[in-house]
Amino acid sequence: MSVSDEREYLPWLALARVQGLGNAGFKRVTDHFGDPRKAFSASEKELAQIPDLDRRAIEGLLNFSDWDEVKEEMQRISQSGVGVVPFIARNYPARLRMIPDPPPFLYMKGEMREADERAVAVVGSRSASDYGIRVTQELCRGLVSSGFTVVSGMARGIDAAAHEAAIGAGGRTLAVLGSGVDVVYPPEHTDLYGKITGAGAVLSELPLGTPPFSFHFPSRNRLISGLSLGVVVVEATEKSGSLITASLALEQGREVFAVPGEAGASRSRGTHRLIRQGAKLVEGVEDIVEEIAPQLLSRSPKTGEALSPALPPNMSLEVRSVFELVLRGPLHIDDVIQGSGLSPAKVSEILLDLEIGGFLKQLPGKRFRAH
Amino acid sequence: MSVSDEREYLPWLALARVQGLGNAGFKRVTDHFGDPRKAFSASEKELAQIPDLDRRAIEGLLNFSDWDEVKEEMQRISQSGVGVVPFIARNYPARLRMIPDPPPFLYMKGEMREADERAVAVVGSRSASDYGIRVTQELCRGLVSSGFTVVSGMARGIDAAAHEAAIGAGGRTLAVLGSGVDVVYPPEHTDLYGKITGAGAVLSELPLGTPPFSFHFPSRNRLISGLSLGVVVVEATEKSGSLITASLALEQGREVFAVPGEAGASRSRGTHRLIRQGAKLVEGVEDIVEEIAPQLLSRSPKTGEALSPALPPNMSLEVRSVFELVLRGPLHIDDVIQGSGLSPAKVSEILLDLEIGGFLKQLPGKRFRAH
Repeated sequence: MSVSDEREYLPWLALARVQGLGNAGFKRVTDHFGDPRKAFSASEKELAQIPDLDRRAIEGLLNFSDWDEVKEEMQRISQSGVGVVPFIARNYPARLRMIPDPPPFLYMKGEMREADERAVAVVGSRSASDYGIRVTQELCRGLVSSGFTVVSGMARGIDAAAHEAAIGAGGRTLAVLGSGVDVVYPPEHTDLYGKITGAGAVLSELPLGTPPFSFHFPSRNRLISGLSLGVVVVEATEKSGSLITASLALEQGREVFAVPGEAGASRSRGTHRLIRQGAKLVEGVEDIVEEIAPQLLSRSPKTGEALSPALPPNMSLEVRSVFELVLRGPLHIDDVIQGSGLSPAKVSEILLDLEIGGFLKQLPGKRFRAH
Repeated sequence: MSVSDEREYLPWLALARVQGLGNAGFKRVTDHFGDPRKAFSASEKELAQIPDLDRRAIEGLLNFSDWDEVKEEMQRISQSGVGVVPFIARNYPARLRMIPDPPPFLYMKGEMREADERAVAVVGSRSASDYGIRVTQELCRGLVSSGFTVVSGMARGIDAAAHEAAIGAGGRTLAVLGSGVDVVYPPEHTDLYGKITGAGAVLSELPLGTPPFSFHFPSRNRLISGLSLGVVVVEATEKSGSLITASLALEQGREVFAVPGEAGASRSRGTHRLIRQGAKLVEGVEDIVEEIAPQLLSRSPKTGEALSPALPPNMSLEVRSVFELVLRGPLHIDDVIQGSGLSPAKVSEILLDLEIGGFLKQLPGKRFRAH
């Protein structure tokens, strides 16, 4: 599904403004109707049939009248060259879709590619040391030459160095903001912002114009880790927001990496704590690639055999059971339905998710095999 | 048992020179006879009854005639002010006695005290960085003020800094040499050697006059870890002997600690490898004490209750069963014998070991309780 036509994403923007709905309600409504437009034409009785949708959300939908504001926002979006990527769009990042609370849609300035599914986040202190900057540059150059997109938060310090190094090495980079995608913060990163949109994308789940309130950052951090196979924390003080990113990454089943520093260096206290808690100690990019390689579906250069692919640990049992069926050999969708005992609709949905996630490939005649 | 009288340790020195006996045979013979003197007066038939003692060792004992050399060595020992501490002596370090291959006796210059059972080893590269030296000094000062004796190998670099810092802080230190206890190596450590013997002891299992051959070092390293509750590696290249000490420490059930450094620092590659393999990351002395505290028999400052003491993991099941009986409350030796199902001789031996090791305390009337 392409959402370049503004009429298509208008109902998504409207749904985001419905009082009392929230992310969870948003997902319940779109799961139920498929098309969010239907939520606004549904009767009270129809809405009451949506599982777990609370009274306030139903009233919010029934009383919704902010269409003027939505149209205004849509206009601003068009004028600013911002894209809107709803959860169900094909170019919505597959890994992000699998986190427990994916945003209903992303605002995007720039462009995301399929290659950006091979992403690693590199984050750290805003007040980085020379050592931290140097390690960030080395790691990001190495990630780019290993074919990874570098994800970070466009903050001062380590984040900025990560984006710069990825771009400088001719690679791709994604920045996730804790403000609207059209709000450049910190202001001195205007040039960097321009370069990122040229070599990847700036993303946000927040409406255009949202200022960079610090309470948005933890929630933003879940997107940084959600987009990535793993999160590398280069430097972090004991109270650094990077530690939040690391713990969200763990909840999402992502790998967490931390760079050591000298004992007593305040900017390494956070990374040392992560290492004590089980984060992988990183000296060079090979430490990252080694750990992440099993997650990537590639063929072993030695034997030509497919490496056993690992699904992210937070995937549901249903998804796993479908995937394991297909792992055994190419299967027709009817055999997957029979083998899994799930409904045809559910199986179609899971197969599509797995295909988008790069875990499966569809063959002619509704047959599927592991990638 | 005090072994200050030279007549008492003469047979030990003789036993060490018996062809074909080795450390294992030495232990079998002394376990069997108690007094090593008896080994030299025993008949062939009596010797053949010692379990697992091989033919060469029996012949070595029967044909032993190097008494002149032994007397000569004894004279050298007396003249050089060196002490000899046989395995069965009360001042033989209790933790060292529990390693799989404790030396039959130690040569000692200086003095060991009961307090030296609370020992932590601090080791590392001979070519240390300024950072490594600084961390070593801080850790050793901290260890001393927490009441620990610092054990090391008197080598250049980290080892020397560890001894110096412990002495400078008014603490105790033990050096284990890979040469005879009378051979100062490296030669520029003559002053340090003198200071160590004044603030602790220099130890070796090698005969007087043995040069510092590098093939002695791995075996020496097992004594460094064997004497200690834990081993801290401050800096180590990828091929450092400190990594051997660390792996011996693990085999002996000792804690292994490693100090991180900057990614890319060659002298931290070894410590980073240890951390990846599970060594505790150390930023300050509190990281060491926190980990070791449960092994020390002390009372909880909050509840006044005895902390559950942990025996080193390499202790035999027999030792554990005796210890666990006594943990439940003060017990008369007869009840321990009955409860354990072991022979009276075995129980006496184990109780003595545990008492020397600081795990038990003997009460009046042959009763025992956990320390």
